[in-house]
Amino acid sequence: MTGTLYLVPSPLGEGPLEGILPRDVLMRIADLSCFVVEHPKSARHFLKRCKTKTPLQQIEFHVLDEHTSKMEIEALLAPLLAGRDVGLISEAGCPAVADPGSDLVFLAHRKGIRVAPLVGPSSILLSLMASGLGGQRFCFHGYLPVEKEDLDKKIRAIEKASRERDETQIFIETPYRNKRLLDALVENCRGDTQLSIATDLSLDTESIMTKPVRSWKGTELGKRPSVFLIKG
Amino acid sequence: MTGTLYLVPSPLGEGPLEGILPRDVLMRIADLSCFVVEHPKSARHFLKRCKTKTPLQQIEFHVLDEHTSKMEIEALLAPLLAGRDVGLISEAGCPAVADPGSDLVFLAHRKGIRVAPLVGPSSILLSLMASGLGGQRFCFHGYLPVEKEDLDKKIRAIEKASRERDETQIFIETPYRNKRLLDALVENCRGDTQLSIATDLSLDTESIMTKPVRSWKGTELGKRPSVFLIKG
Repeated sequence: MTGTLYLVPSPLGEGPLEGILPRDVLMRIADLSCFVVEHPKSARHFLKRCKTKTPLQQIEFHVLDEHTSKMEIEALLAPLLAGRDVGLISEAGCPAVADPGSDLVFLAHRKGIRVAPLVGPSSILLSLMASGLGGQRFCFHGYLPVEKEDLDKKIRAIEKASRERDETQIFIETPYRNKRLLDALVENCRGDTQLSIATDLSLDTESIMTKPVRSWKGTELGKRPSVFLIKG
Repeated sequence: MTGTLYLVPSPLGEGPLEGILPRDVLMRIADLSCFVVEHPKSARHFLKRCKTKTPLQQIEFHVLDEHTSKMEIEALLAPLLAGRDVGLISEAGCPAVADPGSDLVFLAHRKGIRVAPLVGPSSILLSLMASGLGGQRFCFHGYLPVEKEDLDKKIRAIEKASRERDETQIFIETPYRNKRLLDALVENCRGDTQLSIATDLSLDTESIMTKPVRSWKGTELGKRPSVFLIKG
């Protein structure tokens, strides 16, 4: 009998866990003693708040990040194949979405290991709900290109796709580049394209606004984690 | 001072609410006495389980479904403009994603009303996490066409897009058409394209499997709510 791979959502910032994780999810996390994590430091900080039954010092941590090789990922399945339950935790939000955790989940299916996703906060989904732009179709692009020329091109392409396919386009940026991204959006999009920016989701400082691109000109976003959504 | 529009996720089936909604979300729902809902019957059933402070008979319900006109949607903002908090509930899962609720949220932004998304289960996101196919990019298509010729064409188009853009493609179907959709996928996709099917998400009967299309041939899905994901 193999173990179960639990997909454990983590908070998007500080604040009480009871605000963002169901009671049964918190209980499930507290039961686990073996985790695959993206960053051990933040995973430990999170698990400390979860009051795990196993003392933090005795919990087994394995790292899965962008440097982990396919062979190393395969090795991470060992505890599961030996019948032990394992929790997968990524940085801020739902694991195995736009992070290397998905490779582990994929392999788990190949080995017939049960995969159980747990309910928790996802900045992609919360921003989509709250934008008012969430029609029948949407697309998530992860990070847009860094290089200015590529960025401009990409923005124009996804705005066009949004208009042609009636699709909401979602993307993210590292907070210190927020201003640069907003400037590029104002520069490249039609003035009447709708732009939603969701900042500090699920935190006390949460701010969510949807308005035409032209009305965003000159807005000071600050260096806070944000999700961007456009609909042409 | 206007009220806040809370986006209230609802369960994907029966089972304890503590398994899928955070404590603070349940407390927030219990405080509300005015709701905009897609189907009053299922919303009442859900709110009864939430133990609302206001007796169910005294709770104000307004319907927002595919038949609601733009003018009627505008009128739904009246309680919010008068300073009252309102909860938006759609069928099974997160509101304002692939349902008419997004029009209300969009209008709320135009009137400067605060929109607050609450954490809860989303079959789209849970299936994406659990599929192991969730890379950097993904696209949600809602329902695929009903007419057989259009369906085949659409499947081939999104499989091609998935391969070209390295994008996971997500779509849904009404349960009684599950078999028809699976047959069309087997018929139109390459045998080595990965297909993930997530059924009865967040319920005791949950089942999630990812394997090549060719291995799905002849599988009996039954008439249970399912999410389909492919990656070419």
